[in-house]
Amino acid sequence: MGLSDSLRCYGIREGKTGVGIAVMAGRIFAVYTQNRIRAAPVIFNLQNLGKRVKGIIVNSGNANAYTGEEGLRKARRMAEFLAERLNCDLSEIAIASTGVIGRQLDVDKIIRIGEKVLERLGGGEEHINAFARAIMTTDRFPKIAKRRFGGVEILGIAKGAGMIAPNMATMLAFIFTNARCDGMEEIFREAVEGSFNRVIVDGDTSTNDTVFMVASEEVEANPEEFREHLSSLMLELAEMMARDGEGATKVFWVRVSGARSDDDALRVARAVAGSNLVKTAVFGGDPNFGRIIAAIGYSGADVDERITLKLRGESGVAVLVEEGNVVEGSLELAERIMKESRIEVLIDLHRGSGEGYAIGCDLTHDYVELNSKYTT
Amino acid sequence: MGLSDSLRCYGIREGKTGVGIAVMAGRIFAVYTQNRIRAAPVIFNLQNLGKRVKGIIVNSGNANAYTGEEGLRKARRMAEFLAERLNCDLSEIAIASTGVIGRQLDVDKIIRIGEKVLERLGGGEEHINAFARAIMTTDRFPKIAKRRFGGVEILGIAKGAGMIAPNMATMLAFIFTNARCDGMEEIFREAVEGSFNRVIVDGDTSTNDTVFMVASEEVEANPEEFREHLSSLMLELAEMMARDGEGATKVFWVRVSGARSDDDALRVARAVAGSNLVKTAVFGGDPNFGRIIAAIGYSGADVDERITLKLRGESGVAVLVEEGNVVEGSLELAERIMKESRIEVLIDLHRGSGEGYAIGCDLTHDYVELNSKYTT
Repeated sequence: MGLSDSLRCYGIREGKTGVGIAVMAGRIFAVYTQNRIRAAPVIFNLQNLGKRVKGIIVNSGNANAYTGEEGLRKARRMAEFLAERLNCDLSEIAIASTGVIGRQLDVDKIIRIGEKVLERLGGGEEHINAFARAIMTTDRFPKIAKRRFGGVEILGIAKGAGMIAPNMATMLAFIFTNARCDGMEEIFREAVEGSFNRVIVDGDTSTNDTVFMVASEEVEANPEEFREHLSSLMLELAEMMARDGEGATKVFWVRVSGARSDDDALRVARAVAGSNLVKTAVFGGDPNFGRIIAAIGYSGADVDERITLKLRGESGVAVLVEEGNVVEGSLELAERIMKESRIEVLIDLHRGSGEGYAIGCDLTHDYVELNSKYTT
Repeated sequence: MGLSDSLRCYGIREGKTGVGIAVMAGRIFAVYTQNRIRAAPVIFNLQNLGKRVKGIIVNSGNANAYTGEEGLRKARRMAEFLAERLNCDLSEIAIASTGVIGRQLDVDKIIRIGEKVLERLGGGEEHINAFARAIMTTDRFPKIAKRRFGGVEILGIAKGAGMIAPNMATMLAFIFTNARCDGMEEIFREAVEGSFNRVIVDGDTSTNDTVFMVASEEVEANPEEFREHLSSLMLELAEMMARDGEGATKVFWVRVSGARSDDDALRVARAVAGSNLVKTAVFGGDPNFGRIIAAIGYSGADVDERITLKLRGESGVAVLVEEGNVVEGSLELAERIMKESRIEVLIDLHRGSGEGYAIGCDLTHDYVELNSKYTT
């Protein structure tokens, strides 16, 4: 009944190419990139994937994006390979890719590695870890999170990195659960919206972004409990992505309240979390509230000067601005908080009851280094 | 009749505080920041400035933004100081500030420096240069451009820097002309839209952004000629700002054609020029077309994969993608172009006849260095 009985996975990396395979029968839920240019694996899934799945195959090192008809054929070959080995229909295979855009996939190599992966599938920690590591690109650490309540288990494996930029970095996440509950589709979509879609700035979608959830539906779950645990698991993975944003040394949450609407709150949160000037200030440990105020101002939200702005960390809470008035004497505490590795920026707009949040990370020398070298 | 007869200016910097004063009688045209949080000098101008002006006073080092009632009083004092010395009405004085946000202005120091500036006003090159230098913040060079046709003269002085980020950097520009022509207001606004508003990404407005144009109206100008010269002068200043973006080593133009509409073309141009991943690739001299394609895809414009993408530089034109097909063999030339200091990215969307452009600069270690240290 547990996931360790129904999920078997593994992953192997050879040079820049990694292949991860997860085998589990269940209903599949998916959210894909909103980028108008969709990678071949996304197009393949949209055209072929049914409601139930038997297996997932993922490669890292090449996004198979912007690769035209040839890319689509190769995406299909990846899926056909796994469908044959699992002796299932092509509609029961989900695929994903991450890596460089605009280069044809070496699908023979992926299949070659895939064969080895299939020989070593298993349900243990080491198997989950191997899968998580195989799908990494510039990630510095594998991203795995778990929840367990009653007999329900949820396992999440993700890759992120590059999310620091308000643009393309591919994020992939794979959720596995033995749960069955009402409204699962909606719960899944809302959890994605409240987690992965909050890691930095709108438009932050690569050609490949994909979140899958496979549910074996063996154990009945209370929908509210399931929602709560799934959301918190996804948020944990999302924060890991921010922390592992390319070159990042710190993660910061922007929590906005008192907005005219939830949309406005989200606009403000994303503008602040996505501002290069705020990100560099966080890197420098500089409580530069002027940059935060400016970002609030250009967010597009309905705001005025009557803003309350606080920083919260392990050192305490520093009130930088109180209803539009700059608070003297809070700078020392603010500087201490800004040196911490997890910072919360609390913004009250005093305009209504709208709330929202976003998760950002700092912009560092390593980001520039990594992205000026990462090659086509 | 020439500008050297009617314009007298100068500027002095003492430590972090610079003061520039320009004295010239004429009609004034203004465009201000679209940021919802407006600096005190902007609010002052909006409330007090009339249609005709006698003088402009600008300070650098402190933006006088987010400084409440006290900031407004100090902005007024700056203006009153100059109005008294020029023996004119307060409505004939325009003011501007640039620098740190959220700190009260040392207006006494500004007036003290202003007194010295007034003693040295003049119409020569050295006076214009001194004004341009006094209003700089992190700018590495003064930004001055001139046009002359028939008896018409146009002089532009600007400060930029920090425009590399899709956010707050203050840009100030001061245009002086002896021209008189029909539709000047509209010509002025359109020229601003086609130049300063094209330097990186939407929302790119600080709390202080201001463009003034003073026209003494002594010489009749042909409106079309005036439009052409004013636009080209502003574009020259805008490109200087991009080139002097904080830490920037390169400037790149993104020219989009074949869009469904001009708005769509502008969306694409701004998404590409504003993408951190494109900016770092430009810094690294890496013709990473995948990042450009991804930015086009998430721009929000109506696009599909049938894109033509070229790079143009002094070395020639490299066709990276032709109607959706990646062109092999163009990489070597593309790499040579990417090493140049001025690069054009040419994008044809093959969807219609919409056109647009934006001007960007690279994202470098120096940007991170500068902005993680620049202090509150």
